[in-house]
Amino acid sequence: MSKKLPKRSEDYSAWYNEIVKRAGLAENSPVRGCMVIKPYGFAIWEKMQRALDDMFKATGHQNAYFPLFVPKSFLEKEEKHAEGFAKECAVVTHYRLKANPDGEGLIVDPDAKLEEELIVRPTSETVIWNTYKGWIQSWRDLPLLINQWANVVRWEMRTRLFLRTTEFLWQEGHTAHATEAEAIAETEQMLGVYAEFAESWMALPVIQGLKTEAERFAGAVETYCIEALMQDGKALQAGTSHFLGQNFSKTFDVQFVNQENELTYPWATSWGVSTRLMGALIMAHSDDNGLILPPKLAPIQVVIVPIFREPKDLAEIFEKINPVIEELKSLGITVKFDDDDKYKPGYKFAEYELQGIPVRLAIGMRDLENGTIEIARRDNLTKETRQIEGVAEYIKNLMDEIQQSIYDKALNFREENTFSVNIWEEFKEQIEKGGFVLAHWDGTAETEEKIKQETKATIRCIPLNSIEMAGECVYSGKESAKRVVFAKAY
Amino acid sequence: MSKKLPKRSEDYSAWYNEIVKRAGLAENSPVRGCMVIKPYGFAIWEKMQRALDDMFKATGHQNAYFPLFVPKSFLEKEEKHAEGFAKECAVVTHYRLKANPDGEGLIVDPDAKLEEELIVRPTSETVIWNTYKGWIQSWRDLPLLINQWANVVRWEMRTRLFLRTTEFLWQEGHTAHATEAEAIAETEQMLGVYAEFAESWMALPVIQGLKTEAERFAGAVETYCIEALMQDGKALQAGTSHFLGQNFSKTFDVQFVNQENELTYPWATSWGVSTRLMGALIMAHSDDNGLILPPKLAPIQVVIVPIFREPKDLAEIFEKINPVIEELKSLGITVKFDDDDKYKPGYKFAEYELQGIPVRLAIGMRDLENGTIEIARRDNLTKETRQIEGVAEYIKNLMDEIQQSIYDKALNFREENTFSVNIWEEFKEQIEKGGFVLAHWDGTAETEEKIKQETKATIRCIPLNSIEMAGECVYSGKESAKRVVFAKAY
Repeated sequence: MSKKLPKRSEDYSAWYNEIVKRAGLAENSPVRGCMVIKPYGFAIWEKMQRALDDMFKATGHQNAYFPLFVPKSFLEKEEKHAEGFAKECAVVTHYRLKANPDGEGLIVDPDAKLEEELIVRPTSETVIWNTYKGWIQSWRDLPLLINQWANVVRWEMRTRLFLRTTEFLWQEGHTAHATEAEAIAETEQMLGVYAEFAESWMALPVIQGLKTEAERFAGAVETYCIEALMQDGKALQAGTSHFLGQNFSKTFDVQFVNQENELTYPWATSWGVSTRLMGALIMAHSDDNGLILPPKLAPIQVVIVPIFREPKDLAEIFEKINPVIEELKSLGITVKFDDDDKYKPGYKFAEYELQGIPVRLAIGMRDLENGTIEIARRDNLTKETRQIEGVAEYIKNLMDEIQQSIYDKALNFREENTFSVNIWEEFKEQIEKGGFVLAHWDGTAETEEKIKQETKATIRCIPLNSIEMAGECVYSGKESAKRVVFAKAY
Repeated sequence: MSKKLPKRSEDYSAWYNEIVKRAGLAENSPVRGCMVIKPYGFAIWEKMQRALDDMFKATGHQNAYFPLFVPKSFLEKEEKHAEGFAKECAVVTHYRLKANPDGEGLIVDPDAKLEEELIVRPTSETVIWNTYKGWIQSWRDLPLLINQWANVVRWEMRTRLFLRTTEFLWQEGHTAHATEAEAIAETEQMLGVYAEFAESWMALPVIQGLKTEAERFAGAVETYCIEALMQDGKALQAGTSHFLGQNFSKTFDVQFVNQENELTYPWATSWGVSTRLMGALIMAHSDDNGLILPPKLAPIQVVIVPIFREPKDLAEIFEKINPVIEELKSLGITVKFDDDDKYKPGYKFAEYELQGIPVRLAIGMRDLENGTIEIARRDNLTKETRQIEGVAEYIKNLMDEIQQSIYDKALNFREENTFSVNIWEEFKEQIEKGGFVLAHWDGTAETEEKIKQETKATIRCIPLNSIEMAGECVYSGKESAKRVVFAKAY
């Protein structure tokens, strides 16, 4: 583990892959495109899940669970949805294996062919709206606010750990409302929840916006998203919230009697974030020494490394430090005391840097004499020596400071890498260099497609909070009401 | 919802199905054998998950996540394992759909056939031990203590909500150890965790024991289990813990260097409980009025129903009861105040009985005058009127009392329905009537099979803690060292 990571500036992609692997976050499995999420990576995901789940419940949502399999006929029903997902479906065609009559091993039993093929869910709108038909009869049944934590499968040709995998873990919210306005409010509320989570927990500044028609979720009337900027200047879509109109309620014939006693179709939303957030978290903050984790999502927030030669030294150190450990725990901070004698302190320091533990404390025999302790911050790699007295309280405040500091750094990076561009040649140059490029666009799918073909940049979003200011499309020169965000993206 | 449930004594099976449906726990989906777990059912499952997960972590386990798909060649490798699961495998053969060239809808794209078929995991020993090959090199890497929360699929012909479904949710622990003794200790420890969870959380007394060879997990050296008795006299296997020996480490060629510097194979365990526990919970305790939930697993522990005519009455009641609500919450008790005016109190009472809310409080205008409140217990249907002063503290104690009382009732039922039988004719009669039948068995698979054929009873387990006392096999008359537990089972 003493081998250095590749540098971001030299090979960003190799740097990312090595961090994921060497920090023990995930690895590729022998199953094409499917990953194994390792214990340390999963512990971070669990912290994300817990925080998000609490936020969903605080906004009135309940969890439920729907089948892994979607009958092919369900997927076919909503035309755009079917088009969007057909090309990446894992298809179950049989339900039994049998001993190979011509040799070793097992073969698929041809007598166990399903009458109708089942698709491993790529998303659950169809199976859920088919179920909602039985749950929604009256306005009293609305709003229906349901979330599901689940695995989904979208067959991908080029995969990348966390960022794009054939199987991934996610949550998908599926809500039904009596009115269009209520459904839109829900779509926007959940976008806000995602933005709040990204910024407050992941320390990741995001732009909230609308997708263009070309980038919309298959079957949505409107897709909202949060977009973040990675350190290599590429954008990453970190979450989406869809206003589905009445597409799915009409497709699955879900109707209810409203307060005016009329039979009508409910309005729908769906929204999701996935293990892709792990990729965003890693890429947004980490450095050439390894992972940097915001304290709120760090499974271990403080590691204490005693510097000792003899077992009696360790005992002395432990006696001194144990009250600090207890105090940190009572302040709600997760602490690891690493008294393993198989590894040297220098090796441990490098390992904990790789793993992104926010604060490392080191204490040796001279510290005992002086009543001091060394405090090292992972985010900015600074060290200081302080009196051990009162150190727990100091670290508690340091946690907030580090959380904020990581956010500020990411925000600063984004601001330095966001450019307003008006001239096509400059646009191409800037897109090539990276960053968010704010430019006028004439609003047509043709222009969007041409820009994509010529530069590989997509419209990440039409920002929600930008000021309307007329201009000319950077590509066509036609009229434009406001700037949109372009970037190359993951 | 005013319709009564079927009675247990008349149609136990219909009674179970109706409770599951009408209490809002789960329902069948259009996907054969797959269920939808509804929000209320899922909230109970989440409480189970949280408690179990805490117990797993307290015993040193970490969560991780492994792929949904198992390559067919993996499943083939361990012969008994392959035999055990081949007949119930959902098989993915293609990875794409395409527009039907001959008409409407989508068809499976014949050009997207997988070179090797993928099995939707029925359990994950193979894919996990294939992964462990990369994780285990030295004794320093052991023990490896991993758990996964996941969905699994076993194609079932006859399904029953929660008890037997094609897809179900579960956790599967997979551990690796340096020595046989350590692995056996882990297997037994996790059985103990399951027994503790069943008894302390589910209020469900269980017998801990070993499975016979015929009932062992496919690929295990030894299967431990916990067995519970349902109200219809049938047994239900509530959890299993397997000692896998070196079967999977050898099959997947996982070796490590031990402390004596020898290359050797680690020893394995796996253990799991599933959403089947929901079925056990429902069937063990509930009555003809509906669900009965032990307080520790009840998503809502106390419901308060105000009895009022006018909005101003409700306001007065709320003013009086709100401090009690706050106090209950501060005591960690989940409370619902039901001020919905669309339904009458009698209707609400029946609904909350159906849902198994442990304690129902009712308060009306006369109670306000008297400073009283009515307390109704769901488990024994008793009611009492008490002074509202101090009622929160009283209810807190009542939670423990109810938890214990539900357990005692189930234990009492099991004791009354456990029979020692020595004569074959009596054995057959008793099995027909139901209950656990303790009988001597000669230890042979032949006798076990014949008993099963003649009576449909299986050996649920060879109890761990029973006293060795020699006797004669109830079927063959041959020698037997101890009694085993027979029953018809779910």
